[in-house]
Amino acid sequence: MSASLSDSRVGVWLIGARGSVATTVIAGCAAVTAGLHAPTGMVTETDLFADCGLPALSSLVFGGHDTVGCPLPKRAETLVAGGVLPHGLPSAIAAELEAADEEIRPGGPVPGDTRDQADLVDAFATDIRDFVRRRGLTRAVVVNVASTEPAAVGTDQPPSSLYAAAALRAGCPYVNFTPSTGLHHPALVALAESSGLPYAGRDGKTGQTLLRSVLGPMFAQRALAVRAWSGTNLLGGGDGAALADPAAAAAKSAGKERVLADTLGAAPEGETHIDDVPSLGDWKTAWDHIAFDGFLGTRMILQTTWQGCDSALAAPLVLDLARLATRAHEAGLTGPLSELGFYFKDPMGEGPSALGEQYAALAGLAGHLRGLAGEGR
Amino acid sequence: MSASLSDSRVGVWLIGARGSVATTVIAGCAAVTAGLHAPTGMVTETDLFADCGLPALSSLVFGGHDTVGCPLPKRAETLVAGGVLPHGLPSAIAAELEAADEEIRPGGPVPGDTRDQADLVDAFATDIRDFVRRRGLTRAVVVNVASTEPAAVGTDQPPSSLYAAAALRAGCPYVNFTPSTGLHHPALVALAESSGLPYAGRDGKTGQTLLRSVLGPMFAQRALAVRAWSGTNLLGGGDGAALADPAAAAAKSAGKERVLADTLGAAPEGETHIDDVPSLGDWKTAWDHIAFDGFLGTRMILQTTWQGCDSALAAPLVLDLARLATRAHEAGLTGPLSELGFYFKDPMGEGPSALGEQYAALAGLAGHLRGLAGEGR
Amino acid sequence: MSASLSDSRVGVWLIGARGSVATTVIAGCAAVTAGLHAPTGMVTETDLFADCGLPALSSLVFGGHDTVGCPLPKRAETLVAGGVLPHGLPSAIAAELEAADEEIRPGGPVPGDTRDQADLVDAFATDIRDFVRRRGLTRAVVVNVASTEPAAVGTDQPPSSLYAAAALRAGCPYVNFTPSTGLHHPALVALAESSGLPYAGRDGKTGQTLLRSVLGPMFAQRALAVRAWSGTNLLGGGDGAALADPAAAAAKSAGKERVLADTLGAAPEGETHIDDVPSLGDWKTAWDHIAFDGFLGTRMILQTTWQGCDSALAAPLVLDLARLATRAHEAGLTGPLSELGFYFKDPMGEGPSALGEQYAALAGLAGHLRGLAGEGR
Amino acid sequence: MSASLSDSRVGVWLIGARGSVATTVIAGCAAVTAGLHAPTGMVTETDLFADCGLPALSSLVFGGHDTVGCPLPKRAETLVAGGVLPHGLPSAIAAELEAADEEIRPGGPVPGDTRDQADLVDAFATDIRDFVRRRGLTRAVVVNVASTEPAAVGTDQPPSSLYAAAALRAGCPYVNFTPSTGLHHPALVALAESSGLPYAGRDGKTGQTLLRSVLGPMFAQRALAVRAWSGTNLLGGGDGAALADPAAAAAKSAGKERVLADTLGAAPEGETHIDDVPSLGDWKTAWDHIAFDGFLGTRMILQTTWQGCDSALAAPLVLDLARLATRAHEAGLTGPLSELGFYFKDPMGEGPSALGEQYAALAGLAGHLRGLAGEGR
Repeated sequence: MSASLSDSRVGVWLIGARGSVATTVIAGCAAVTAGLHAPTGMVTETDLFADCGLPALSSLVFGGHDTVGCPLPKRAETLVAGGVLPHGLPSAIAAELEAADEEIRPGGPVPGDTRDQADLVDAFATDIRDFVRRRGLTRAVVVNVASTEPAAVGTDQPPSSLYAAAALRAGCPYVNFTPSTGLHHPALVALAESSGLPYAGRDGKTGQTLLRSVLGPMFAQRALAVRAWSGTNLLGGGDGAALADPAAAAAKSAGKERVLADTLGAAPEGETHIDDVPSLGDWKTAWDHIAFDGFLGTRMILQTTWQGCDSALAAPLVLDLARLATRAHEAGLTGPLSELGFYFKDPMGEGPSALGEQYAALAGLAGHLRGLAGEGR
Repeated sequence: MSASLSDSRVGVWLIGARGSVATTVIAGCAAVTAGLHAPTGMVTETDLFADCGLPALSSLVFGGHDTVGCPLPKRAETLVAGGVLPHGLPSAIAAELEAADEEIRPGGPVPGDTRDQADLVDAFATDIRDFVRRRGLTRAVVVNVASTEPAAVGTDQPPSSLYAAAALRAGCPYVNFTPSTGLHHPALVALAESSGLPYAGRDGKTGQTLLRSVLGPMFAQRALAVRAWSGTNLLGGGDGAALADPAAAAAKSAGKERVLADTLGAAPEGETHIDDVPSLGDWKTAWDHIAFDGFLGTRMILQTTWQGCDSALAAPLVLDLARLATRAHEAGLTGPLSELGFYFKDPMGEGPSALGEQYAALAGLAGHLRGLAGEGR
Repeated sequence: MSASLSDSRVGVWLIGARGSVATTVIAGCAAVTAGLHAPTGMVTETDLFADCGLPALSSLVFGGHDTVGCPLPKRAETLVAGGVLPHGLPSAIAAELEAADEEIRPGGPVPGDTRDQADLVDAFATDIRDFVRRRGLTRAVVVNVASTEPAAVGTDQPPSSLYAAAALRAGCPYVNFTPSTGLHHPALVALAESSGLPYAGRDGKTGQTLLRSVLGPMFAQRALAVRAWSGTNLLGGGDGAALADPAAAAAKSAGKERVLADTLGAAPEGETHIDDVPSLGDWKTAWDHIAFDGFLGTRMILQTTWQGCDSALAAPLVLDLARLATRAHEAGLTGPLSELGFYFKDPMGEGPSALGEQYAALAGLAGHLRGLAGEGR
Repeated sequence: MSASLSDSRVGVWLIGARGSVATTVIAGCAAVTAGLHAPTGMVTETDLFADCGLPALSSLVFGGHDTVGCPLPKRAETLVAGGVLPHGLPSAIAAELEAADEEIRPGGPVPGDTRDQADLVDAFATDIRDFVRRRGLTRAVVVNVASTEPAAVGTDQPPSSLYAAAALRAGCPYVNFTPSTGLHHPALVALAESSGLPYAGRDGKTGQTLLRSVLGPMFAQRALAVRAWSGTNLLGGGDGAALADPAAAAAKSAGKERVLADTLGAAPEGETHIDDVPSLGDWKTAWDHIAFDGFLGTRMILQTTWQGCDSALAAPLVLDLARLATRAHEAGLTGPLSELGFYFKDPMGEGPSALGEQYAALAGLAGHLRGLAGEGR
């Protein structure tokens, strides 16, 4: 482990810090640190990242922005009731939840806000800098885990872009775990490139698209001809409601279909639906139906059904990304971290779409970091 | 393309030459050669194998052994009725079917056979050598596509091993596309190694195990903890009946479960059933149910249903393997062709279990062959 | 069997007479009559309808309207290629296909049509009357099996209503097997009621809704609380394209969801999608995901996947309905035939929504007809 | 409500009283009585049974036999951890759990037991009579909810039959919710018939067979030809382990397949597997694959996946049966209660196999009881 990081503390500033994903990230980091649970789902805790100088989980300090005020301990109890967090966990890690709760600042814009966009970026960046200074952090990463926002209309920057701009302003690496715009706004692209900061995104690959990124290559490698790939996602919770808005769903569906076009060589027939089903709570179900032709045109079918808990799928990836982005920053890497395509539906930078190749790229990054760590960097 | 092969003709000697797979192989090769169908499912027809000196499909000459006598044209019509072959194909390629039919010799042992095992190996090897000489072939490969045989009892060699021994005797590369014993018999292992011939097997990976070889690695790469992997296969046709015998099914199930232990690091809970369902004909359905734990132990489920036509899945792989094995022979490769693990449930030789890595190994073989072809070899 | 009908011939006038359903109806009736196939899927050929005086299949004479001109024998060959009709059937029943083909008249309105709505109704009714007279039929039923039309806009009658009006004008019972408007147009309701004719509809219950009509009652009878019922239909063929139009899909989805509200007591959460997937051809797949609460609120899930051939599911029901409607006409029944709710997503008249109760109602009709037949009526 | 029962208390003596089902029955009855949960899944709480004189849930008093000693409150906490009981419930109803726990007596035979079969029946009957007397109960029902026992070997009575004999000896109605032998032992059949007691069984219909009892009739009513019906059950918990014994599974699988033969008219091809998958805990998953032929022999497929919690499915049915059996006893009904076929895989007495008809039979019983209640009986 890198000596420099072993003594230091690293900030994780979460946009949407009171949401289900953020609460699971904070609670889960505390639970794993305390030895209450194994780090299931965290690739950075596997041998792949041994001796790579990643910040220890115990060194992570959480804060963030949110527009709602529900305290984290209460949010955690809600997640227990929904089967996302294990019973008893919130009380076992109450101190960590309260510590994070104190570091959450009001987000924006809120209805009736009189601040303009520049004001908001200033305010957000100040919040982040204050966090770093007050907690004596070596550095901090900004991670967007807020609900998906509607597609931007006009030239105004949507909230996700304001937060992203604030991250750049505060000199922080940035990770967009959602399909929201973030750094993809025209006003930010050049700014990001010239910032000298590393960044990654977008839209965490947690279920249907994860499957597609291994099944698409399977069909391609076997020279089977996929004719139609249809899918339906049933989502409860806040994400279901946000994505019931067709404009918000459009970005997400586009990411889901892109992996097919990339891995199959051409986009097959078929639609991908995202349904809001509130009674599913934090659980999601994705059904895929793949019609393909085999030898001599014989029609065959593969169907998959994935039933997962959205926050439990996302949280370990967010922890991975926070550790990787801060380590990349420490290591002097800049620009889009294309080696992190493993984590995203719509990866920034150039890189493969097949999960196996993305894993190999991630392993390459691990090797690079390990080499630097061996040199004391 | 290698000049030597472009002018030459290469034999494909099929054990079980009147079965569904063999009939689809022969009919499909003719159909693709005639331009009636695209070579869907044949990896050797993709860019990966461009300029590798593989024998052209049009250069393949078919023959083989079988213990039943139904003529190939009639078998082909049965496959049309079962939806395996397209309507009209048997008449369009009648000449090729009849040519192959004339090259099929009686297999054995048959009930009441007075020949002992050595006699049978002699007879089979003579049949193969005669085929090569009579048809003026540069070389021939022996491919076992017969129905799965019951597990061997005692020290006697099962029929699949007699045919494999005959292949060695006749100086032919050998491919075992079934879970039957073949070269895995103790009496043959050393013989095969010292033969100077290339060989490959066993048990073609056409459905459930193909899926498992991409899904297992997905769970492993994402550090998700698979708790139970259960599966049921519904098979009609001859294979369903053969595998309804628990002894025959044991070898196949073992192969199916091995890929899980290899890719997940440990064998999960769960059984794999193989049911004989005659009314499914040549179609098979495989259901898999995978229970895994995510972050903080949250239980999640993936289910897959694969509906495929067994012969249509197998045939292009058999054609691939016949081309690769004869090209390997020409190129002087010997021993187990571990680079062909991509095609098998239970690959011979050392090699990875994840499909992506197996594909990379196959690509490595392609590169090697391309290099040789460039040198005129 | 009723003597009067045994000697008589009965007309079946199909709207959409060159479509997949109509072609399957005509070909299938001929195939069953000729003893080439069992009457699978025809409830009127079960013991339930023994001695009810239904017209024999051999007495049915087919004709109809269509706006396209592809000859029936050619349509039948297309259906063979798509796996809907068995190979060889079109030639075996070529005479029957040609006879029906000669009785198909141009439908309308066609682009550039100068006839107004009254003209079209006149023309259609004349076509039907001519058919009855020319072929010496005792009576004829008009059955709408055309592609689903877009929802009506304005007060104009859509084509399906013009054909329905023509049926009334010609004194024929009418069956609407599609979700199109037909007799449900405000201009026709009173006319139908005063016509003295029997009629039935609408929207044949062939797949997902059939399942829902047995699963909904199961949940209700077991007092299980369905929270969300979500579904996706993948349709190829003409129906998929027609229903890709949201306006056309709306009527169909409404019927699918109505059975849930009726059998469960309240409409659950969840959407029902209808996707156009041309490469599925005449095949359709319906996935349903049902989230329900059991004792003490425990969440449970049922999923169903139905893979069927649309025309093969519809055709025997159309034959049933044609026989039942003409027999009802003969027996003097008038108005909506509510006992035929068994066949429809959105039944006319009052009646139960659970399939079991609908079957009991159908059995009641059979008993009534049997009584009349016993009296020589 | 019957005056006699409204003031009285009724015993429910559970064989396997510390098991998951029994614990859920006792906890659930208390939870519903206290108004903490709706009576989801209890048919006796629907309008169907209004004014039928059933004993109130608040009047039920629980006791039973078990061979293990884990206290009910602890068992309840285990079920909370497994997601079967809602968090917080055990403490909310602690008094009821403890009261029932005090009424549980040691079962048998236990290893090393020196009592012979007659001794055991005596001891069990004495326990039941003591319970009735000590608690001042009007009557009590004995319900077997113990783990499935291995199939009987030889003429010895298995434990389930000893308990059933004790119920008769104690003058109690008896319900067998498991596939174990119970009253089906040759030594008990005549005894039961002459006992003047009502009884019911066997094997509660909670998942796959429930579905089959509505889907089988659907295929039959639509005259569709089911060719193969295959199924796999994945069970965790004690039942999975018990049924991993092929002898124990045989009775259960037989019940599952019987409903198909009964509703379809003939047994289709296909096997039904029962797998022990411990990591599923109290949850079970059943996959069914139904291959059927439609019109002109077109092959179609229905698949279902049922994911349920075994104890939560069983418990409301057990409460229903306890109320119905004691009310039947009060009403003077004797012998097999064939009107309760709705609840069982393998119903005693004559009755229909289709769920809808079984529901109608149950409604008939309700009407009968309502009539008696109106007369003050």
